[in-house]
Amino acid sequence: MAGEFEFINWLRRQREPAPDFVLVPPGDDLAVLKWPPGDMLLVGADQVLDGVHVDSATHTPRQIGRKAMNRNLSDCAAMACLPVAAVATVAAPRGAGVEYLKELYLGLREAGDEFACPVVGGDTGSWGGKLALSVTILGRSAGVEPVRRSGARPGDVICVTGPLGGSLAGRHMDFRPRVTEAVTLARRCRPTAMIDLSDGLSRDLAHVCRESNVGAVVRAADVPIHDDVARLRHSGRSPLEHALHDGEDYELLFTIPPAALKDLPIPAHVIGAIQSEPGVLLEYKDGRREALEAKGWEHGL
Amino acid sequence: MAGEFEFINWLRRQREPAPDFVLVPPGDDLAVLKWPPGDMLLVGADQVLDGVHVDSATHTPRQIGRKAMNRNLSDCAAMACLPVAAVATVAAPRGAGVEYLKELYLGLREAGDEFACPVVGGDTGSWGGKLALSVTILGRSAGVEPVRRSGARPGDVICVTGPLGGSLAGRHMDFRPRVTEAVTLARRCRPTAMIDLSDGLSRDLAHVCRESNVGAVVRAADVPIHDDVARLRHSGRSPLEHALHDGEDYELLFTIPPAALKDLPIPAHVIGAIQSEPGVLLEYKDGRREALEAKGWEHGL
Repeated sequence: MAGEFEFINWLRRQREPAPDFVLVPPGDDLAVLKWPPGDMLLVGADQVLDGVHVDSATHTPRQIGRKAMNRNLSDCAAMACLPVAAVATVAAPRGAGVEYLKELYLGLREAGDEFACPVVGGDTGSWGGKLALSVTILGRSAGVEPVRRSGARPGDVICVTGPLGGSLAGRHMDFRPRVTEAVTLARRCRPTAMIDLSDGLSRDLAHVCRESNVGAVVRAADVPIHDDVARLRHSGRSPLEHALHDGEDYELLFTIPPAALKDLPIPAHVIGAIQSEPGVLLEYKDGRREALEAKGWEHGL
Repeated sequence: MAGEFEFINWLRRQREPAPDFVLVPPGDDLAVLKWPPGDMLLVGADQVLDGVHVDSATHTPRQIGRKAMNRNLSDCAAMACLPVAAVATVAAPRGAGVEYLKELYLGLREAGDEFACPVVGGDTGSWGGKLALSVTILGRSAGVEPVRRSGARPGDVICVTGPLGGSLAGRHMDFRPRVTEAVTLARRCRPTAMIDLSDGLSRDLAHVCRESNVGAVVRAADVPIHDDVARLRHSGRSPLEHALHDGEDYELLFTIPPAALKDLPIPAHVIGAIQSEPGVLLEYKDGRREALEAKGWEHGL
């Protein structure tokens, strides 16, 4: 029968032999993992929804699976933890077929394999709705205290790990989460706060400021703009606006005392500074300042 | 703004103070948990989809949240582990509103609270589709080796923890997962195999037999039939058929050597025995035997 069990049997063959720390692989009620004694467990979940984060009419299931995993790996990067394993649930449109599900899984797996993060369990269902793919990621601290959003201090500089904007022209489906960079950074010169840029610089920096109870000034001229912005030149918005608000960059934003800049082990752009006054300001070359409104992504509920 | 952040702020106030083992509560990129040294980590995920597992037109969001959590807690029961924490993703129909999301969360929480299993993270999105609620559960072995599906041996008896059938008349929305019973059982007289009856006795017993490389005989007269079956008396199927195939019972099925029956610390019905010949048979009082086909739930992919 070309159904759930054929797919599950195929899934199980994909992971033989299981990694050493997987004591009971997929196929039972739950997977069983060995957890390193004394290591913190980090956990979170994120989903991709057809018509919101992906478009099943234009993106392949392999791409969709990759994106779902990479968004979660990017959350690991934001905390400077090492990904360990993931579980996934798929709500697939009725009739999607086993081959489509296999490709989704292979996408998850490809992206996970780049960071030795296997898919160890999950659930597949079909329904009358569109594709919803939810991934939960487990990470471990690996000797690095998790970097939170709440530690930014007045005087810290604000850095981003790469150019921003224009991701929706295509890059959002095929980015590399900054896991290695984050752990390297946190080991060498600990950031005071960190977040991955998924909602857009303006909104994600506001998250950090709110959690840290501080404000920030961003220097417009120092915001690095991605070449992809040129692909959206008929949008009616300036390149800077794209870089500030587009979202789905999946670069890291972190804050760090200025003295630590000379030891940075990864490339980064300094774009501004934290201050004690609340609010996020955008400063132009002529010294003019205006409020940087958070125009990035917010789900309308 | 009545949006994601209002909801997230409300969510965070629901869990103050956080349990001791939650080092970083919801609100950062990931939650951080302390894990008991040497304890195994069990993990799995399960979802409820509108129109498949629940009906948003007739079930309240509180009920839907409860069911989503309880299905996962039932997976913990099936392995005889203790639930620790859960994360959830919600894909909500656009315009569902913050109050609806709060009720979903309160349903998850109510069910989790009965087993000291907090919701420590997740993601909420809205889309043009119907409600999809995915829950990942983390459990710990707590000194009991996880009970797998694969340990049933010829000669073992087959037990179920309660009467079966008719769950879809309403019980499937409001069941109590057998977590306490499972751990009590596994500590006293270890089952050789265990599973929770979600797909239906015929199908779930077939899972155990396949994983254990054995067969089984079920005695028709000994299958306990739930009173709820009477509510489906116009279904055209016999009470026994309902008990064998309906699914969503969320009782435990376990196998155990007959000598251990006298020590069972929980109520259970002995319904048959494991044998070495593959296949699952149904035996009637007159000695007649027929193949017990797995007619329970299988998602048509």
